[in-house]
Amino acid sequence: MKIAIDAMGGDNAPKEIVLGAMKAVQEFSNLHITLVGDEKQIKEYLTSDERITILHTTEVILGTDEPVRAVRRKKNASMVLAAQQAADGSVDACISAGNTGALMAAGLFVVGRIEGIDRPALAPTLPTLGGEGFLLLDVGANADAKPEHLLQYAIMGSIYSEKVRGVTRPRVGLLNIGTEEKKGNELTKHSFDLLKNADLNFIGNVEARDLLEGVADVVVTDGFTGNMVLKTIEGTALSMFKMLKTTLMSSLKSKLAAAVLKPNLMSLKNTLDYSEYGGAALFGLKSPVIKAHGSSNSRAIFSAIRQTKDMVEKGVVGQIQKTVEESSNSKIES
Amino acid sequence: MKIAIDAMGGDNAPKEIVLGAMKAVQEFSNLHITLVGDEKQIKEYLTSDERITILHTTEVILGTDEPVRAVRRKKNASMVLAAQQAADGSVDACISAGNTGALMAAGLFVVGRIEGIDRPALAPTLPTLGGEGFLLLDVGANADAKPEHLLQYAIMGSIYSEKVRGVTRPRVGLLNIGTEEKKGNELTKHSFDLLKNADLNFIGNVEARDLLEGVADVVVTDGFTGNMVLKTIEGTALSMFKMLKTTLMSSLKSKLAAAVLKPNLMSLKNTLDYSEYGGAALFGLKSPVIKAHGSSNSRAIFSAIRQTKDMVEKGVVGQIQKTVEESSNSKIES
Repeated sequence: MKIAIDAMGGDNAPKEIVLGAMKAVQEFSNLHITLVGDEKQIKEYLTSDERITILHTTEVILGTDEPVRAVRRKKNASMVLAAQQAADGSVDACISAGNTGALMAAGLFVVGRIEGIDRPALAPTLPTLGGEGFLLLDVGANADAKPEHLLQYAIMGSIYSEKVRGVTRPRVGLLNIGTEEKKGNELTKHSFDLLKNADLNFIGNVEARDLLEGVADVVVTDGFTGNMVLKTIEGTALSMFKMLKTTLMSSLKSKLAAAVLKPNLMSLKNTLDYSEYGGAALFGLKSPVIKAHGSSNSRAIFSAIRQTKDMVEKGVVGQIQKTVEESSNSKIES
Repeated sequence: MKIAIDAMGGDNAPKEIVLGAMKAVQEFSNLHITLVGDEKQIKEYLTSDERITILHTTEVILGTDEPVRAVRRKKNASMVLAAQQAADGSVDACISAGNTGALMAAGLFVVGRIEGIDRPALAPTLPTLGGEGFLLLDVGANADAKPEHLLQYAIMGSIYSEKVRGVTRPRVGLLNIGTEEKKGNELTKHSFDLLKNADLNFIGNVEARDLLEGVADVVVTDGFTGNMVLKTIEGTALSMFKMLKTTLMSSLKSKLAAAVLKPNLMSLKNTLDYSEYGGAALFGLKSPVIKAHGSSNSRAIFSAIRQTKDMVEKGVVGQIQKTVEESSNSKIES
């Protein structure tokens, strides 16, 4: 099992990436990691090179770079080389905490799509009150989508949830502005019919209001809406923590009480913290490509590595490929 | 100044509606209210009928009714009669806390659109950390929208914010998945150009993540996305309060500390409580039509009445009409 990691991507690179990688090889004895990036900087934090190889490069894609252009021009960037390793079979999968758009472009142009998949989808696992989490896709790999794309997202999400997250017959919901069948815009109305007739555990429309309650295991939507919902959840949670902090710090009495409650408030923050849930997977590519959160610490990187390892071991890509082939064969036959 | 109120709409009707109405006529000496609904039920709570008239009807549109059909068939429903009062000029505006879809249908079919407005828009004011709030439109009057509709939303929202909320040159933002000009889906890309060239204080794209930070005064989007964002904010806030409650009730120590913090937590809840912000206005109709929140208490009804009164007094409908006429004249000239 080999995984390439962009050691230079993310707010805390390379330190937290290197620490997370070392923790992972300690934990998983069959794991080999290739850290791609500036050897000198990486070695500052690398205290053991057991099953860790460095692929040296000084070129880096920045968060401010225009994604497609950066991937095309910076051919030796750490992210591009990590994707290249996955593309030529030197490793089984790759991970980056860097520029999301650039990683999607690298996935598409360097790793390449599975034949039969029209559009890859970016799929993070989001927290729920009960702690089980749900997969949301697409959150922005493609802003506009057609009903057929949403069907493929549902298939890919179901396979992932079943294989990696161990959910039996994952409940697939269509994100919509009401639960009734005829609700929504042109896209959701047409997608509903397609999903209803597919070989999936489709539970119908789900509303944004109920997402954190764990109303479905896999929630499909177009990339524009998914991104919007993802960022609204993040923004609302963040704003509420800010407000909570302001009110708790407003008097001596409240400060004292807040000090007592600190462990409780931290546990609340942790429930909502998706470093626990690993990274966002890019589905529909020939190898697993995982986007770790930009602000990942070593724990989040470790989670992303574990998740990537699971995707490889459980053969998610192969299963997606097989399912897509079967469904296109059955179309030809019918 | 006359306002008709659907006394039977909402979870707490008619009690909270009647109480809110009585409070409003006490506060505003030029205000006359027509309560539309079951006279017997209304009179149970009506302790003073000074400047309050009852228009009796027993028919009611339920929350579960299919909106368009209900408005067409239940011609004597309290909501429909309230809209009819506004349509025939018996009152200056109408309010309901009932079925949102039905109120939009009543607005469209009974009150009617301003000439030149293609689509009405439903526009609630949402809370921000600083307390100033922002107007979000459309949140579901029309699921699908074209760039020209978003331009009209921006014009209507700006007029409202300036006249009613007293914001000088309201900052208009286009809700998008990134702040850069070329970001987004087909709709936002085309809308950006239209908005940029309009006579508005257009500040460009705004992200869902920053909404509660008060990044704009007026945020425009299609009804599908707006509804999604609105419900995501509601759902996330609600889920977080639930989690907060669970963690605070988890031990005796945390319970005691939580008791000390109760006023702080209540004030946080109030900041996010949009009964403070009045109802959602339906823009683009010949009279102001206001949707109060379904769970409105008398305070929320009072806020909605005050807001409606402001819309009438500040001549929002007339200004929208004038602006639309001018813009279509300038189109003909150019």
